[in-house]
Amino acid sequence: MKYDRTFNFSAGPAMMPEPVLEEIRDEMMNYRGSGMCVMEMSHRSKVYQQIIDDAEKDLRDLMGIPDNYKVLFIQGGATLQFSMIPMNLMKNGKAVYIETGAWSKKAIAEAKKVGEVVVAASSKDKNYTYIPDCSDLDIPEDTDYVYICENETIHGVTWSKLPNTKGHILVSDQSSMFLSRPCNVSDYGMIYAGVQKNVGPAGMVVVIIREDLIRDDLTDLPIYLQYKTHADAGSMYNTPNCWAIYCCGKVFKYLKNLGGLEVMQKMNEDKAKVFYDFLDSSKMFKGTVVPSDRSLMNIPFVTDSAEKDAAVVAATKAAGYDNLKGHKSVGGLRASIYNAMPKEGVEALVEFLKKYEAENS
Amino acid sequence: MKYDRTFNFSAGPAMMPEPVLEEIRDEMMNYRGSGMCVMEMSHRSKVYQQIIDDAEKDLRDLMGIPDNYKVLFIQGGATLQFSMIPMNLMKNGKAVYIETGAWSKKAIAEAKKVGEVVVAASSKDKNYTYIPDCSDLDIPEDTDYVYICENETIHGVTWSKLPNTKGHILVSDQSSMFLSRPCNVSDYGMIYAGVQKNVGPAGMVVVIIREDLIRDDLTDLPIYLQYKTHADAGSMYNTPNCWAIYCCGKVFKYLKNLGGLEVMQKMNEDKAKVFYDFLDSSKMFKGTVVPSDRSLMNIPFVTDSAEKDAAVVAATKAAGYDNLKGHKSVGGLRASIYNAMPKEGVEALVEFLKKYEAENS
Repeated sequence: MKYDRTFNFSAGPAMMPEPVLEEIRDEMMNYRGSGMCVMEMSHRSKVYQQIIDDAEKDLRDLMGIPDNYKVLFIQGGATLQFSMIPMNLMKNGKAVYIETGAWSKKAIAEAKKVGEVVVAASSKDKNYTYIPDCSDLDIPEDTDYVYICENETIHGVTWSKLPNTKGHILVSDQSSMFLSRPCNVSDYGMIYAGVQKNVGPAGMVVVIIREDLIRDDLTDLPIYLQYKTHADAGSMYNTPNCWAIYCCGKVFKYLKNLGGLEVMQKMNEDKAKVFYDFLDSSKMFKGTVVPSDRSLMNIPFVTDSAEKDAAVVAATKAAGYDNLKGHKSVGGLRASIYNAMPKEGVEALVEFLKKYEAENS
Repeated sequence: MKYDRTFNFSAGPAMMPEPVLEEIRDEMMNYRGSGMCVMEMSHRSKVYQQIIDDAEKDLRDLMGIPDNYKVLFIQGGATLQFSMIPMNLMKNGKAVYIETGAWSKKAIAEAKKVGEVVVAASSKDKNYTYIPDCSDLDIPEDTDYVYICENETIHGVTWSKLPNTKGHILVSDQSSMFLSRPCNVSDYGMIYAGVQKNVGPAGMVVVIIREDLIRDDLTDLPIYLQYKTHADAGSMYNTPNCWAIYCCGKVFKYLKNLGGLEVMQKMNEDKAKVFYDFLDSSKMFKGTVVPSDRSLMNIPFVTDSAEKDAAVVAATKAAGYDNLKGHKSVGGLRASIYNAMPKEGVEALVEFLKKYEAENS
């Protein structure tokens, strides 16, 4: 490749589109005649206001976000959202959570510090390798919301059909599948995503929240933790992660120019098929997730022993395919193939694994 | 200048050293043979671990941070620290705050949500144009800490001598003077600074905290809001602002190579003297702060009318000197001349203002 760049299968932070990185590089010393790098700009300046306005507009266009939803850029990662969500959305002090893997578990632990958590369904019984049937859950009338992690980065499961919330508000963590396929925003009360997987640099979460869920009676909460603070100030109550907004804005525009989320979905399905077809035909490797709930983004797979897994990780690393070790909590291997991973990267890895299998069985 | 860059007098985000920006640009497509941009790197990778380790080490060297202090990189800005500080450090539920301007006022407002705040001294009577005498304050025995904002970005006052805390822990917001002069870390229980003024890109706070102040009995707090979470995980409990750590690390190294904080202080005193000497000799412009408490970083000044102030702002902007408008809460003008502002920038602005005065009086 032009810059001798590697195929990076990291679960996040992860690959960004090369043309976007080139633009950022070329604007480093003087952004479009402003005389400054974007990192040096006052967030109260006209030139920066245009950058954040464009980023929000392009994201709204991409996802078709209705006018009655606010788009917020907040620091602190999904981890801070695990707390902000119950602090802001629990009115009755009760919420339903669906437990499908490591990230929904973490969200549950934080929500329990704030109010009552009803775990209405869980796939813990089979080590989070499937999405439980959520078509007819027992949902308390007074629940404030139903919470899901729509793609579990570590366990590699994804929701192909949203849960039946029986009229209650749906809150979704889309961190590791954000912008990977079309999304009907009106199905949700709130969507949020750490941007460091499918979009840009770490250090920012995008929150898309229906306006009527933003409360003004929470003035006793720390000011940073109120959605109202960020909504009222266009995400600039205090200095935001200006750089991440700039970089993500470029990715939003790049995806629009590619043709939008339908095109992205098609590309992601094509890429993932290459990998899953290989796993399904391999004798050495197998995927860990039930086929109907497989993620298009994160593909966990194993051999029949931890020793062999480790040998494969070492061999891929030596061959220039980076970050294929599975998360320490589950072991094995994991290939994360987000939006910016080219199909050639997946094909090259699959070829390598085929060859490895032929030579080692 | 080489890249036609402007002298940017913004209060933050603000100028960064040009050689640092060049390095960042040159490493954009492939960081030192890693095959990736730093924005794309797993924070759990060896190559990134080296970046964060180097950043912390260079900061420790620069400031002479003792081994019994932790260095943490946290998101959410000073605004989130306004809440985290009382949540983590109030054991008796009481703290002393000194009110010296807009930022200490905001810190007080957030601390009041958590516990009892004793404002032991204030300069509100003269619109925050001086630092009150804090040599013999009435400090309650059971106060958990004494809080100051060591440089008020908006009002342009700075502490030349720390308050007598009578044995209590001192907590200091150094956001707008961080690394501008040597600092005896042992005088403090905790120092923190948003990096977007004197160091790097917005979206990160550096917290320097004495280990014995990090509590492990706060497990009911949101996990992101416990200092222990960040301390135990080397600032990587969740994905940090990796890019800001990388950029700030480069600035730390740059300052070390310049000769360290004594050299930086001398440069900052030289630069500020050029400006204050001009203000003290001008008939049109005057500084708003009493001379003994003037900031080396943020210089607020005024003419005798708001109309004239606005005309000067417009004229400087047209001449290529950016962001000289005073904060909306105080009006007038303000020149922020952080570490990365070259002396030539200050000299050029002063020449311009002299000429403006000659032509308009």
